[in-house]
Amino acid sequence: MNPNPEYGPQYAMVEAALAAEISGGILAPGSQLPTEARLIARFNVSRTTVRKAIENLVARGLVEIRRGKGTFVAQPRITQELTELTGFVEDMLALGRTPTARLLDKQIVPADADVARQLAVPAGTLVMRIQRVRLADGVAISFDETYLPRDIGEQVVTHDLDAEPIFSLLEDKYDLPLTEAEYRLEAITAAPEVARALAVGPGSAVFLIERTSYTTGQRPIDYEKLHYRGDLISFVTRLARRPRERT
Amino acid sequence: MNPNPEYGPQYAMVEAALAAEISGGILAPGSQLPTEARLIARFNVSRTTVRKAIENLVARGLVEIRRGKGTFVAQPRITQELTELTGFVEDMLALGRTPTARLLDKQIVPADADVARQLAVPAGTLVMRIQRVRLADGVAISFDETYLPRDIGEQVVTHDLDAEPIFSLLEDKYDLPLTEAEYRLEAITAAPEVARALAVGPGSAVFLIERTSYTTGQRPIDYEKLHYRGDLISFVTRLARRPRERT
Repeated sequence: MNPNPEYGPQYAMVEAALAAEISGGILAPGSQLPTEARLIARFNVSRTTVRKAIENLVARGLVEIRRGKGTFVAQPRITQELTELTGFVEDMLALGRTPTARLLDKQIVPADADVARQLAVPAGTLVMRIQRVRLADGVAISFDETYLPRDIGEQVVTHDLDAEPIFSLLEDKYDLPLTEAEYRLEAITAAPEVARALAVGPGSAVFLIERTSYTTGQRPIDYEKLHYRGDLISFVTRLARRPRERT
Repeated sequence: MNPNPEYGPQYAMVEAALAAEISGGILAPGSQLPTEARLIARFNVSRTTVRKAIENLVARGLVEIRRGKGTFVAQPRITQELTELTGFVEDMLALGRTPTARLLDKQIVPADADVARQLAVPAGTLVMRIQRVRLADGVAISFDETYLPRDIGEQVVTHDLDAEPIFSLLEDKYDLPLTEAEYRLEAITAAPEVARALAVGPGSAVFLIERTSYTTGQRPIDYEKLHYRGDLISFVTRLARRPRERT
């Protein structure tokens, strides 16, 4: 490879060549990257250059290093719109994926301060907590904790929650149409419980959505903590600029 | 503490008591939590119970463990609305914070595949890249990479970018009003370069926003990669449910 200052440093060219092969499907998701030695020979660059290129591909989420095994092409992220209130099953079906769920636990618990504020009940009030893993095409994408007022919750958990989405139950069986939701979005690292549920290492990146959904009469009816695998999801939206007063 | 099955396990009561003292300001941000021994004595519970309570407070982001030093009350996150296109300076002023910036680098670089697609130029086209750390009240909140078309970029970098926001320069000096932006939101872990810029450990959670802003005529004018410190930021929005056809 001839260094060409106009096109930046050599590692950037190696990085761009490999990124193009990944996005073009020549290097498929899950496949192993060629060894350092092969990349050094192919691009005629130093080991340092190859390592820098791979480090950048890792930072871009295009490849991942599995200790003792090598470097692999990462699964592409699911790109999901964040423009209206939708449930996991609706989201995955819209993307042509097959959603499934695995119920981990359903239990009456006292509302902590967060849950109480979101469901507009006094702290300590008993509420229903449902813990599920949500999967797309068989891969665990999200660990969800759902909190419902006790009376609704006790009805909802009589259904097969591996098969029936809670949003559908609320809207279709219990005549509680959802009107809107408040979202809080955070990037956190996976606590041990979440890491276990998602089958990722502790400390992995998690995209956390806390969502309070309302039914008619501005009544909060469903508070969720959705822990998405950070390496598998990406949310997109479009926001307008507020027209400015010219001063 | 008397165990009371109606209010759940003992660790949950210890957790709730400490969380209440944190949100009530009795335990101030940055202050050290009492030692395990003191918590055991105060709540009359086992070491395991205290540890489980603290583990949950860590997972909720309310406290943080500093190795070899103890457990400390975390800084509360900045809660920022994600409802219209705004710049960092506008956001921080709206929250009553003092925004500042530290320019790290400004450089003409060839557009990689991502940058090229976002700015609607052929890959390899030379563009301006500006790297800054953005601070609120003196604390580094975000590491930003801004890509501008070369002609605009060369004008923008003649200004003092520690003092002048790029959005203001585009709109006020160069008559390029921003109309809207596409956002992509991801949770990632900090690459070494980002961790250094934000003064956090590598592997810390980062809330990444990739944003392409448009000016009149649907022309993309500014592509940014905003790496927010995950532990310091939280975005909120409100989404409506699409009215459903009854079947």
